[in-house]
Amino acid sequence: MDAVEEALRRALAEKQTAVEAQGSAVRDLKAAGAGKAEIDSAVETLNALKHEKASIERQLQVAVSSNGSGNAVNREAFRQAVVNTLERRLFYIPSFKIYRGVAGLYDYGPPGCAVKSNVLAFWRQHFVLEENMLEVDCPCVTPEIVLKASGHVDKFTDLMVKDEKTGTCYRADHLLKDFCKEKLEKDLSMTAEKAAELNHVLAVLDDLSVDELGAKIKEYGIAAPDTKNPLSDPYPFNLMFQTSIGPSGLSPGYMRPETAQGIFVNFKDLYYYNGNKLPFAAAQIGQAFRNEVSYPSLNTAKLRAYARVFISPRQGLLRVREFTLAEIEHFVDPDDKAHPKYSEVAKLEFLMFPREEQTSGQSAKRIPLSEAVSMGIVNNETLGYFIGRVYLFLTCLGIDKERLRFRQHLANEMAHYAADCWDAEIECSYGWIECVGIADRSAYDLRAHTEDGELLVRAGSRVVDCSSSNRSKDKSGVPLVAHEKFSEPREVEKLVIAPVKKELGLAFKGNQKMVVEALEAMGEKEAMEMKATLESKGEVEFNVCTLGKTVTIKKSMVTISKEKKKEHQRVFTPSVIEPSFGIGRIIYCLFEHSFYTRPSKAGDEQLNVFRFPPLVAPIKCTVFPLVQDQQFEKVAKLISKSLTAAGISHKIDITGTSIGKRYARTDELGVPFAITVDSTSTVTIRDRDSKGQIRVSVDKVASVVKEVTDGYSTLADVLRRYPTHSSVSVDD
Amino acid sequence: MDAVEEALRRALAEKQTAVEAQGSAVRDLKAAGAGKAEIDSAVETLNALKHEKASIERQLQVAVSSNGSGNAVNREAFRQAVVNTLERRLFYIPSFKIYRGVAGLYDYGPPGCAVKSNVLAFWRQHFVLEENMLEVDCPCVTPEIVLKASGHVDKFTDLMVKDEKTGTCYRADHLLKDFCKEKLEKDLSMTAEKAAELNHVLAVLDDLSVDELGAKIKEYGIAAPDTKNPLSDPYPFNLMFQTSIGPSGLSPGYMRPETAQGIFVNFKDLYYYNGNKLPFAAAQIGQAFRNEVSYPSLNTAKLRAYARVFISPRQGLLRVREFTLAEIEHFVDPDDKAHPKYSEVAKLEFLMFPREEQTSGQSAKRIPLSEAVSMGIVNNETLGYFIGRVYLFLTCLGIDKERLRFRQHLANEMAHYAADCWDAEIECSYGWIECVGIADRSAYDLRAHTEDGELLVRAGSRVVDCSSSNRSKDKSGVPLVAHEKFSEPREVEKLVIAPVKKELGLAFKGNQKMVVEALEAMGEKEAMEMKATLESKGEVEFNVCTLGKTVTIKKSMVTISKEKKKEHQRVFTPSVIEPSFGIGRIIYCLFEHSFYTRPSKAGDEQLNVFRFPPLVAPIKCTVFPLVQDQQFEKVAKLISKSLTAAGISHKIDITGTSIGKRYARTDELGVPFAITVDSTSTVTIRDRDSKGQIRVSVDKVASVVKEVTDGYSTLADVLRRYPTHSSVSVDD
Repeated sequence: MDAVEEALRRALAEKQTAVEAQGSAVRDLKAAGAGKAEIDSAVETLNALKHEKASIERQLQVAVSSNGSGNAVNREAFRQAVVNTLERRLFYIPSFKIYRGVAGLYDYGPPGCAVKSNVLAFWRQHFVLEENMLEVDCPCVTPEIVLKASGHVDKFTDLMVKDEKTGTCYRADHLLKDFCKEKLEKDLSMTAEKAAELNHVLAVLDDLSVDELGAKIKEYGIAAPDTKNPLSDPYPFNLMFQTSIGPSGLSPGYMRPETAQGIFVNFKDLYYYNGNKLPFAAAQIGQAFRNEVSYPSLNTAKLRAYARVFISPRQGLLRVREFTLAEIEHFVDPDDKAHPKYSEVAKLEFLMFPREEQTSGQSAKRIPLSEAVSMGIVNNETLGYFIGRVYLFLTCLGIDKERLRFRQHLANEMAHYAADCWDAEIECSYGWIECVGIADRSAYDLRAHTEDGELLVRAGSRVVDCSSSNRSKDKSGVPLVAHEKFSEPREVEKLVIAPVKKELGLAFKGNQKMVVEALEAMGEKEAMEMKATLESKGEVEFNVCTLGKTVTIKKSMVTISKEKKKEHQRVFTPSVIEPSFGIGRIIYCLFEHSFYTRPSKAGDEQLNVFRFPPLVAPIKCTVFPLVQDQQFEKVAKLISKSLTAAGISHKIDITGTSIGKRYARTDELGVPFAITVDSTSTVTIRDRDSKGQIRVSVDKVASVVKEVTDGYSTLADVLRRYPTHSSVSVDD
Repeated sequence: MDAVEEALRRALAEKQTAVEAQGSAVRDLKAAGAGKAEIDSAVETLNALKHEKASIERQLQVAVSSNGSGNAVNREAFRQAVVNTLERRLFYIPSFKIYRGVAGLYDYGPPGCAVKSNVLAFWRQHFVLEENMLEVDCPCVTPEIVLKASGHVDKFTDLMVKDEKTGTCYRADHLLKDFCKEKLEKDLSMTAEKAAELNHVLAVLDDLSVDELGAKIKEYGIAAPDTKNPLSDPYPFNLMFQTSIGPSGLSPGYMRPETAQGIFVNFKDLYYYNGNKLPFAAAQIGQAFRNEVSYPSLNTAKLRAYARVFISPRQGLLRVREFTLAEIEHFVDPDDKAHPKYSEVAKLEFLMFPREEQTSGQSAKRIPLSEAVSMGIVNNETLGYFIGRVYLFLTCLGIDKERLRFRQHLANEMAHYAADCWDAEIECSYGWIECVGIADRSAYDLRAHTEDGELLVRAGSRVVDCSSSNRSKDKSGVPLVAHEKFSEPREVEKLVIAPVKKELGLAFKGNQKMVVEALEAMGEKEAMEMKATLESKGEVEFNVCTLGKTVTIKKSMVTISKEKKKEHQRVFTPSVIEPSFGIGRIIYCLFEHSFYTRPSKAGDEQLNVFRFPPLVAPIKCTVFPLVQDQQFEKVAKLISKSLTAAGISHKIDITGTSIGKRYARTDELGVPFAITVDSTSTVTIRDRDSKGQIRVSVDKVASVVKEVTDGYSTLADVLRRYPTHSSVSVDD
């Protein structure tokens, strides 16, 4: 709870007490038959107190509902304006709309699809081409064994509760969150202590265990929102779409929840392709799937309402069941996380929100990247390099740099294995939204697929335990490691365990193999203890967990020693630094940041504009004959042909509508340039945002438009070369 | 069975008879104690006959196994050479290889992914941009109701049989096909009649019903291939991957088997987006999924063999479980299928294989497109236009035009509703492979989603029947139709059925609504018959199927008439012309068509080359310092930077390997240009296929490479401007 809110709640409680006391005083006066003047004066005081209380209530209302960052009502209205435009111009279409839609699934209509395709093309240019990344393309259908190893089968879950009578499912944390928020907003008379408790629940919501979450739901008496029926205890629901591969029904599979695993399982081949050299990065763009629980089940009436509203209340276009991810896995030596091109971004300065600033209640601040890295706020150079590159990527697309920040994960947000994580968060009408995650995941992902590989790397330090040897059946057994050749061999001390198979065979017969394996799998400590016992006592009791019993090992059965060996190379599991882009979220935020309205010339209406840079604009220019005229139409078609040849997406509009209306239509699609044909030799090119116009000869149009849309020139550069169109602006 | 094969089989049978007769003659001579000279002569004749028989057997073997088109063994060897190169250079990787893979799933590794991305970019330029198509992007997860309406839930099946003991599944038609082919190849002594029967089975394989297929499997005694166990009767298996949407488990969904349905359900919005004008085309690129049965189930040992072989026997890379489709749905007035740009392709001439040529045993022939359309071989101009555009698309990519043909579907291959279908087939080592389907699907797809829409269009001709009114619950009820406004209103005669609700209410009370609906739903014929009966007899028996009984309708209860009405527009369901591209198949065929080998300079080995045009080449050029030298490396890095800025994908190779070896490596990836740095001021650019070199100054390199890779110039054009490099070729 922020300080303002707390102070207001306390003031409100005090004022309430004062109002009650004064009310009681008035009643006492009346009962005692006091004089009118005295009573009037007391009533006046009471009214003043009530007035003050109402004023505090209003302030508290604003403080709670706006969360201290602008006005919630305005944000809602702004979002409606953007979303209405996006829907009307078919940037998005609710999927399967004629069948009433499916919550959490959206189509990109023609302009949306073009924007997406432009964003992805720029992503390829900015990351894959620039860094010579190895791009791969793996299937969405994934066998269970892969996602078991990665941990998704066991841990990729949300906690769910069911309406005990109708069976409708809800996310347990969402119900608790909604309850707390509503209570805080509506129950202004709550004690400051109670409010602090609810705010605390909101703060730790993501960390609550199944039992804690269940207890809170019970304690607050939360019921099913639609029916008020009682709810089941929370239970985990796996968010992956499950399916079955092949006709037998015996091979479970899932639709991948991320694209990264396809890269990890190919590490060995990709490392080879890169000439067995580190560092290198692999990349993948593709669909990912999450069977979100945050929508009511399809068969309820509420779904229809969701489909009608199009943007469902819970972050509609931001939380979807199928989405495009673009992921980079940069593999690097854990002992050397420098980046050769780091200096190219080190001087950038932008909003960062380090862990310490968050926990101490400060806000994001502008920090030079070089400072963040050198002070150790950002863990290493490679992580810093990608943070810088992501900043450049997003701002080139048109994301407002004042509403973009890099927020470091708090200790409790990060997986135990992660070295450091930062989210690129973009502010939109829904608040600060995580759009890109940039994480140093250390060696976790490669090791997860390669139990035996891990053995190899960490030989001598591993303790045999039955659970992990069971687990290793689910692993590939293929070591996903890198090699560093030493320029000169290095001497190291190695544990050598040599079972004497002849003796073991005589003693254990059919069980020999299990005993040998258990001996060889001993860690350094255990082995050296066994050596000491064998030397002092001649035999030792030894637990073989694959046999489920203890056997007696005699001195003659095994020799244990430490030998000095020369090693010619170091074998290690590379660290993975992973920038992961939610393309749909970036695009939605881009739409909000690009949207503005301006009055029509007559001033009678507000016109919508998307200020997309040419790079992402779905259509680069439109071609209008000024008036309906065969000659002009012929020129327009000629220009259209030359634009197609130059690969510039465009639209011809030969309707008789006024030129102003046609400009307005095209502004609403974010088309940056409009070519108006008003003669057969020269035409004008109008800039969407400045409304400035230049005059260009018909045969030069395509090359000028190409120059500005490719980003080689700005319109300002071109203006210097061509005379500004001098005629009166025909806009509106 | 072709004529050659039949003649050889007959000749073989005759020779066999002759051998038997002569053998018997020899035995008779011996038994009769004939003279040695006589016996020797008879044996000589016998040996000659045996020799002739063996020769015919060899000819037959070749005729059967090569299918009359080249040598099967050579094709197999060629394919192995291509596939080994593709696998070694990571064009493809078997998906989840470290877990032994999953049959039918492949990754594109870095060069494969780049080729795919280039092919898709060109597809967008050639189709979407050129025709101003409306590109959309819909989810893969699709609710059951959509695929029920499209027919996929009921009909998208393969017939499957199960090993009755192990449960392993096989495609019934594949087993029958394998049996017939093997029998024909190995049992050369079979009668010509028997061979004709087996060849007939192969010809009609796709048309066999469940019962016919089961009967054949029984008749031929076909058993499970791995175990020789008996097989179950064939039964249909749906090829869609099934899943469940949302947490309730009550909403079945599927991974889409094609992208087209996403476009059809959006027809109304797209038509509006296009200003309510026809024709227009929508397009979509995306993943599609088919849970093929043609692999043994995942858990059998055989799978591991499949994964190891990488290219599984049954068309490995061509028949996969997940693939990229690029589909166009061109919506057109069924009464006007002309295309405004048809003239641009009409003069093209290429291999076409019309229905008549196929059934009369002729082969594909070169026909001018204009002739095929004007003679009605191709149904209409729009279909012809797309056939021409597909031809241009494929040949621009590098498909050999001599191994590309357009084959018309036979009558029994086409759906009953289709007006005409052509497949672009590309010949590769697997035979002629369908890579693009171009079909005029008439109004089928739009009607499938809109029972009520159909009602609207065909009002007056529909007969009420209970089954169809049940079916309509699965339809969207949204009319997917187009409108043509008449310049002047037209007079039409319309059936008007006016139930008199007051009378009906008195007579039928609670059932009134059902009776009214049944009356209103009458078709023209039924209504006019009722009118006649009511006028002659005053009442009529009328079956109301929603009530499940017959009621008596009196004259006072309904008036039926025909009225002349003025209509201002025509409402109709557009026809759909659908070019559908299997991107993975096109790419695989492109790999085969682009592959060749040439001897190394020393002549001691064959070097592999992919002759990709710059348009599709995964990497456009490589940069080599001639020798390891700091100055040269600096220049190489400078050139690399300028190439990146120009958006040209490239690779630097600064290893000390000989320049010849480096050229060979790059040829094997299909890189069209190699820049060799042998001075600090000028460098050479080498052309992959001609090995010709030109010398260019360092600051011009990027722009020259861009010019040739963008296709604005050929290397020949550039050669005219720059002096041919005069030094001795450093190749090899």
